[in-house]
Amino acid sequence: MTIGVCYFPEHWPRERWERDVEEMAAAGIEYVRMAEFSWAVLEPERGEFDFEWLDEAVELVGDHGMQAVLCTPTATPPKWLVDERPEILQEEPDGTVREHGSRRHYCFNSRSYREETERIVTKLADRYADDPHVAGWQTDNEFGCHRTVRCYCDDCADAFRAWLAEKYGSIEALNEAWGNAFWSQRYTAFEEVDPPGPTPAEHHPSRLLDYARFSSDSVVDYNRLHVDLLRERNPDWFVTHNFMGRFPTLDAYAVSEDLDLVSWDSYPTGFVQDRLEGEPTPDQLRAGDPDQVGMDHDLYRSALGRPFWVMEQQPGDVNWPPHCPQPGEGAMRLWAHHATGHGADAVLYFRWRRCLEGQEQYHAGLRNGDGSPDRGYHDAAQAAEELATIGDVDHVDAPVALLFDYDDLWALDEQPHAPDFDYWSLLEAFYGALRARGVQVDVVHPSADLAGYDAVVAPALHLVTADLADRLTAYVEAGGELLLGPRTGVKDAYNKLRPAPQPGPLADLVGATVDQHESLPPQIETRVRRAGDPDDTYAFRTWAEWLDADAASPLLTYAGDGVASGRTAAVRNAVGDGSAVYCGVWPAADLADDLVRPLLERAGVSHSDRLPDGLRVCERGGWTWVTNFSSGRYRIAAGDVSWLVGDATVEAFDVAVADDGIVDGLSVDRL
Amino acid sequence: MTIGVCYFPEHWPRERWERDVEEMAAAGIEYVRMAEFSWAVLEPERGEFDFEWLDEAVELVGDHGMQAVLCTPTATPPKWLVDERPEILQEEPDGTVREHGSRRHYCFNSRSYREETERIVTKLADRYADDPHVAGWQTDNEFGCHRTVRCYCDDCADAFRAWLAEKYGSIEALNEAWGNAFWSQRYTAFEEVDPPGPTPAEHHPSRLLDYARFSSDSVVDYNRLHVDLLRERNPDWFVTHNFMGRFPTLDAYAVSEDLDLVSWDSYPTGFVQDRLEGEPTPDQLRAGDPDQVGMDHDLYRSALGRPFWVMEQQPGDVNWPPHCPQPGEGAMRLWAHHATGHGADAVLYFRWRRCLEGQEQYHAGLRNGDGSPDRGYHDAAQAAEELATIGDVDHVDAPVALLFDYDDLWALDEQPHAPDFDYWSLLEAFYGALRARGVQVDVVHPSADLAGYDAVVAPALHLVTADLADRLTAYVEAGGELLLGPRTGVKDAYNKLRPAPQPGPLADLVGATVDQHESLPPQIETRVRRAGDPDDTYAFRTWAEWLDADAASPLLTYAGDGVASGRTAAVRNAVGDGSAVYCGVWPAADLADDLVRPLLERAGVSHSDRLPDGLRVCERGGWTWVTNFSSGRYRIAAGDVSWLVGDATVEAFDVAVADDGIVDGLSVDRL
Amino acid sequence: MTIGVCYFPEHWPRERWERDVEEMAAAGIEYVRMAEFSWAVLEPERGEFDFEWLDEAVELVGDHGMQAVLCTPTATPPKWLVDERPEILQEEPDGTVREHGSRRHYCFNSRSYREETERIVTKLADRYADDPHVAGWQTDNEFGCHRTVRCYCDDCADAFRAWLAEKYGSIEALNEAWGNAFWSQRYTAFEEVDPPGPTPAEHHPSRLLDYARFSSDSVVDYNRLHVDLLRERNPDWFVTHNFMGRFPTLDAYAVSEDLDLVSWDSYPTGFVQDRLEGEPTPDQLRAGDPDQVGMDHDLYRSALGRPFWVMEQQPGDVNWPPHCPQPGEGAMRLWAHHATGHGADAVLYFRWRRCLEGQEQYHAGLRNGDGSPDRGYHDAAQAAEELATIGDVDHVDAPVALLFDYDDLWALDEQPHAPDFDYWSLLEAFYGALRARGVQVDVVHPSADLAGYDAVVAPALHLVTADLADRLTAYVEAGGELLLGPRTGVKDAYNKLRPAPQPGPLADLVGATVDQHESLPPQIETRVRRAGDPDDTYAFRTWAEWLDADAASPLLTYAGDGVASGRTAAVRNAVGDGSAVYCGVWPAADLADDLVRPLLERAGVSHSDRLPDGLRVCERGGWTWVTNFSSGRYRIAAGDVSWLVGDATVEAFDVAVADDGIVDGLSVDRL
Ligand SMILES: [Zn+2]
Ligand SMILES: [Zn+2]
Ligand SMILES: [Zn+2]
Repeated sequence: MTIGVCYFPEHWPRERWERDVEEMAAAGIEYVRMAEFSWAVLEPERGEFDFEWLDEAVELVGDHGMQAVLCTPTATPPKWLVDERPEILQEEPDGTVREHGSRRHYCFNSRSYREETERIVTKLADRYADDPHVAGWQTDNEFGCHRTVRCYCDDCADAFRAWLAEKYGSIEALNEAWGNAFWSQRYTAFEEVDPPGPTPAEHHPSRLLDYARFSSDSVVDYNRLHVDLLRERNPDWFVTHNFMGRFPTLDAYAVSEDLDLVSWDSYPTGFVQDRLEGEPTPDQLRAGDPDQVGMDHDLYRSALGRPFWVMEQQPGDVNWPPHCPQPGEGAMRLWAHHATGHGADAVLYFRWRRCLEGQEQYHAGLRNGDGSPDRGYHDAAQAAEELATIGDVDHVDAPVALLFDYDDLWALDEQPHAPDFDYWSLLEAFYGALRARGVQVDVVHPSADLAGYDAVVAPALHLVTADLADRLTAYVEAGGELLLGPRTGVKDAYNKLRPAPQPGPLADLVGATVDQHESLPPQIETRVRRAGDPDDTYAFRTWAEWLDADAASPLLTYAGDGVASGRTAAVRNAVGDGSAVYCGVWPAADLADDLVRPLLERAGVSHSDRLPDGLRVCERGGWTWVTNFSSGRYRIAAGDVSWLVGDATVEAFDVAVADDGIVDGLSVDRL
Repeated sequence: MTIGVCYFPEHWPRERWERDVEEMAAAGIEYVRMAEFSWAVLEPERGEFDFEWLDEAVELVGDHGMQAVLCTPTATPPKWLVDERPEILQEEPDGTVREHGSRRHYCFNSRSYREETERIVTKLADRYADDPHVAGWQTDNEFGCHRTVRCYCDDCADAFRAWLAEKYGSIEALNEAWGNAFWSQRYTAFEEVDPPGPTPAEHHPSRLLDYARFSSDSVVDYNRLHVDLLRERNPDWFVTHNFMGRFPTLDAYAVSEDLDLVSWDSYPTGFVQDRLEGEPTPDQLRAGDPDQVGMDHDLYRSALGRPFWVMEQQPGDVNWPPHCPQPGEGAMRLWAHHATGHGADAVLYFRWRRCLEGQEQYHAGLRNGDGSPDRGYHDAAQAAEELATIGDVDHVDAPVALLFDYDDLWALDEQPHAPDFDYWSLLEAFYGALRARGVQVDVVHPSADLAGYDAVVAPALHLVTADLADRLTAYVEAGGELLLGPRTGVKDAYNKLRPAPQPGPLADLVGATVDQHESLPPQIETRVRRAGDPDDTYAFRTWAEWLDADAASPLLTYAGDGVASGRTAAVRNAVGDGSAVYCGVWPAADLADDLVRPLLERAGVSHSDRLPDGLRVCERGGWTWVTNFSSGRYRIAAGDVSWLVGDATVEAFDVAVADDGIVDGLSVDRL
Repeated sequence: MTIGVCYFPEHWPRERWERDVEEMAAAGIEYVRMAEFSWAVLEPERGEFDFEWLDEAVELVGDHGMQAVLCTPTATPPKWLVDERPEILQEEPDGTVREHGSRRHYCFNSRSYREETERIVTKLADRYADDPHVAGWQTDNEFGCHRTVRCYCDDCADAFRAWLAEKYGSIEALNEAWGNAFWSQRYTAFEEVDPPGPTPAEHHPSRLLDYARFSSDSVVDYNRLHVDLLRERNPDWFVTHNFMGRFPTLDAYAVSEDLDLVSWDSYPTGFVQDRLEGEPTPDQLRAGDPDQVGMDHDLYRSALGRPFWVMEQQPGDVNWPPHCPQPGEGAMRLWAHHATGHGADAVLYFRWRRCLEGQEQYHAGLRNGDGSPDRGYHDAAQAAEELATIGDVDHVDAPVALLFDYDDLWALDEQPHAPDFDYWSLLEAFYGALRARGVQVDVVHPSADLAGYDAVVAPALHLVTADLADRLTAYVEAGGELLLGPRTGVKDAYNKLRPAPQPGPLADLVGATVDQHESLPPQIETRVRRAGDPDDTYAFRTWAEWLDADAASPLLTYAGDGVASGRTAAVRNAVGDGSAVYCGVWPAADLADDLVRPLLERAGVSHSDRLPDGLRVCERGGWTWVTNFSSGRYRIAAGDVSWLVGDATVEAFDVAVADDGIVDGLSVDRL
């Protein structure tokens, strides 16, 4: 329940540092992250190290009662290193080298770069091993940013072949697993398998999926190198990495296994423009979308099942989205509370002060270029004060799990089968319906233990093994309520179609199979109606499956007089003490609510009335955070609670925190 | 009048094959195409051949009373071959190599690949030379798919120089023919002429046109290598190649000269999305556009003037268009009848069974992944039964020729002079008007013998020689009716402007010349009116020519008060016993009908009332096929005919076949 | 006050030349530009020169009483030269070579190409040093066309490093000036600095700005090589270069310093399609936008403060815009008058005759392909006659300066901070408001002497030095009226943010500072209202700054109820005898007029009522040109003047020239 900041002392004159640090402390800041991207400052020439500046900065932070979080500076190898060992650079599929001049230009599999990494991390870890002011470390920065997870260089080719040999044992096994009889793609040796380069037509989906896995594994491996070196020097340090929002190419679950703490970088008004489908609303441009941000909070919280940090919190306007509107009044405070309600224990704003040089000049900080307080500073100080008042709060205890799997994401990204099919958006269709009912949601890998959840929602379990099917069946039989979305149970673990009809090993649990699927452009009418009810129709989009119900009861059928008319679109199957619902379409919001609400009722999960867009509530440890991402004003009909922050009337972009759980039956009125 | 299927036994367990083949025979299938893309299965390592599986598959097919069509497997050289002889790979203009991992990665001019081709084709031809079950061969697969006709490698550079030296004799002649004084582009030797690579500005149009011709000729040459080897082994085999729809870079007329049979691959709902201008209608998404498909049927039928085959017929939903809606109920049967009405003698569905591996997993087959019948199976079986009932039918006898020339296409593609100028679409504007009047159309090269046609339509004879002008004049003088579209008679055979005003050598025949041309964006009003009639206006699009009538009478003048107002847009000139109409604009549908209907009347060609979109009729050999590509229901006012398939009420996506010619004066009512 | 033409005798048979030249003279043409792109004709093989044809052409021109303007033919090195010295070719950032086959394929920094340039220019200059018919020279052609200012080859890398070493002296100074502590971008030696190649993320803005400056300087240097060689041979020749419209990468001020005469190539209906934001209107498609063309006239006139030439004037339809409509009737004459009103002394049409070969076949000339007169010929002849009647006219004396700086353009192009932020468009928002009031405008560099101007408008002085701030302050104190637009005073000369709040060193002059800035997409309402007036609101777009007024008075505040509501958007500050207005938004047309009109009144600048779009007036030397770029008809309420061309009723695309200044208080009525 605390606030921090990211600081780059090396960008500022040394005589200013003390005042900066005093002002941080005055704002209630507890953590100061430093040394990110500082390699060329720490080692201006090979072997010539300058740690003095960082020693002083850490000491200043400590002297003012704060803790330092340091970063391994590997995201930006200096030019002298690149010129000396150019083989560390990444390559595009067509061989174009990604040169020095921005950041993240190194290859995760470069043998040379691993040597250099070991050298600089060891040096830093040794230097601060006994420093009492260093609380922990961030490895590198935003692994994979700027599409850098996947590299196509010779080191990667070698590593990919070794990874395949390790996984498959023999080339015959690989040929069989991928299905290389197709288009004469069989190999006679692992040496023949290249990274996927430029080809006349699209690549083999099994090869692409394994390249996606291999690339992600390469980052996991590279991160572990940092973690091991740091832990060896000081086992009391926490080690974290700052992930990104809606990040598609790196398996955060796998990286997190080597971490003590998961953190991520949250930029609500940036993400709403470049990572959300469609045109953002004016309110979203001012504060972001609470469900987009919330799903990332929940993903990173669930990765280790522990409180997470926001390592970089948007401090005002930023430089990288298409447009850069000013956040709504108070939005920077709103985001800190929203993160806390979702389970964050610390929120660090990025950055202390607007940078005067380099690529991020148009990125605000808590302080202006001249050092005066900017809009975010007041928000941050207020949030720090309010969170200090609230004190420690227990971890989030979510009653519902949403299943999220990078393998599914990669497989569907490679074969979306419609330009508008986006795995994240499909997840949000279900996630948003749960959050609009005030429910906390863990976003977990399908291999997670589901026993503790009252309900499980799996929007697109594309690759399903028999083992997973067994586990889900056991979950339902034991009384669990399961909701499955479209494109479930289509493929095996190698991204090959199953011969059995979809949903493959889940067919018995679902009590139905898929006869046909289709993807549909907007000019085709897409509506379903409740089975047996000719009038009540709901919109869906993009994807339609025609189901043949076996044991299951039809829930939805296709409306209209088109080719699917009257076919079944969704079913429910009671199995043991629970039930499974299979929905073969991508639901629009009304339909998603009409799937989720009965699910929550059957599962006995407390929930609110359907909340307005932008207004969201989070229960955590007996407290409830009400966060308003909209410019509307709302009255919260929460009965007799006391408000630690705000009150039952929530203004535009405002927050209220109640000392009780208030979600059950909650209603909200727009004023 | 028969049905077939494409089969890939190598994708399935051998124990399944017999049942597959039994089920094919049960559906009335007569032809089974196999061995496409099978090189790595046939020759897993250099010199290690495995023909046993194919022997067995061919034998099974024969044993069940069907005929096998085999393919040379050259579209997919295996990885061992690519690694051994990497010089076979294609190159992009900027030198990027098109690597292994999909298909069609070889260069048609590669000396190495021609050796390898000779080796594998000879091996296969020898193996099956005496096999009674092999009816014929398909060479390779879809030459040029994935933009592979044009390669820019060193072998191609050498071959291009040799091709030029052969064509021009001396570099001075080339300089003169192209007009290389412009921008100092003259060469001093053929060795200086490269394939057109990356340049600051656009390329010389004469160089581009010759590169287009050379590239197409390279494929013709490469195909002939297959044909010669196959014919040498067994002269009784037919040899065909499967062309594609609306395919822009390969001269199908030239390739066909070496074939016994022309075939093509028809995917109506795919093509309507990615090869037709504008947004498809819901009906087009369900069944395709009958005129788009029909023009390809007519082109490939006309290439040899003989019945053609559909070598791959869309079997259901496919994997490659932007969206993949399910075809309308019965559409797969509709397409088979439509092809037959246009002159097909066999329609082979692609493929027998949905493939579980590789790039085409989302492509339906006649059977599902588990082997059960899919939607297309029932359609195919019904079509097979109906076509068997109808029996043999004479070849199409078309009264009208539409002139289509790849040289014109290439020249206009290089200099469209408007982003929305597309040669195919301009052709379809005229073709569609003819088909909406129920007229059969041969799509022939301008060098074809025109004597047998009552009318000739040439939508854009861009390059016109004096010889062609003489032939067209003789055609009209002898009583022919000729309709010419815009951009006619602009250039010589080297893609140079003629000094004489457009339409150059056709000016006397047309009785008018072009004073100005212009291309127009949608925000400029584009209407013409009938000469002498101020009220009756018609829309046109994209292109306008201002004509100076000489001997000719004005037919259309520009409406509105813009700069062209009152200028002549179209003329008619009576010459000898016929007449020539020149239309200087790209007509919208109403204007196209108003040009075509009088033409048909003057030419004495039987025709129907103007048919609704989606409903089309084809007369062939005394029968009439009525095909409904729409979701509407129609009554055919055909008088006293008997219906072999269906009846006078044609349901959505349905077919009717009458035992008589019914087009003359036919009217149709929507129910 | 005269007319000329561009002629390519080498494209035509020699026997035609005499007639061509006679027809030129008959049309009143005085200047004939020749020899552009003629290298391969002048030197077909290395060392084999053929000047005879050019001798004869020059002599013919002279014999008919005209003057020749010759071109150095370096824009098109012949293929034999490229093959012999391939190192002259340009490279893309990723190393792709820009090959022979169009034009402009050489690198400005190529040592080899400078040698070759010296060789051919010397040869030509020697040949014509004493020719009485050669009036002057054009260097090369359209430096930088087809994005060729910036090259990334090894010669450029070397030259860039030398340029940096010269500018900064030490690498430490460069690191400091750019701010290379950011993202570890510091260098240890100039040898480490590369041209900006492909990188994972965006480049350092300071590096990009210096690469833009270096690239432009390279062209300046290369041009000077031509100029020096020509001047050395014959100091009486004028030397010019033909710049392009709205050209972004070359500093025309800097190139002009080495020239005697500035000229440019004006293509109104082409530019309106590919260099103007939004969709052009039908009128713009017929005649272009007079303010777009006018701003270029004014820029090139102001570069040397002397009459300029239009070296290439659009003669009819052209080949390169998206669409190619025919210009309105008389538009080619209109453009010549419009240029003259803006200060041109000669207007040369491009080209004499439509070219039958090569890339520009679809480009009209004054004569058709067959030699007959085309539309432009009649317009040119009429313009020549009218301009001859008018005779010599004094130079334009503009009361208002618009400040334009390539450094600002480059800095903003690199960091537009909104997809719709375009420096040129912002300039035109202010320029158009001035021109709609009939005011002549000099478009000058901020370093120009401002003393003679009654008012100065600076739409986006992004990089501001203390010296410039002092000069502007002195200007205002001395009674000048200054209008500043948004994004002013943001950065230092190295493209680094200033620590002081925007507008940095201009804050005192403006009497206000910028608290926040934001860029806004269209879905956010963007209106301001006059301070103190709740009803009168004006639209703005894209950019908003929230001002804190200090000494200044608020002029505009933000309307609506959003986050900026009530904040100040523009201020006025009285300083000494003048005043400064700072406008923090990008004004739409009504707001721009409401900023400009009071400015003109305070400055005592004569101006008209607000003129309709398309109708523009220019006073020059006591004459007034009225030019109508629209299809409307207008009556000019000009009182008692006599008209040398036309009269007070101006038809569509027509011109009138009065023998007096008529702008003050002028009103215009649409008929
Ligand atoms: Zn790599
Ligand atoms: Zn090649
Ligand atoms: Zn260069």
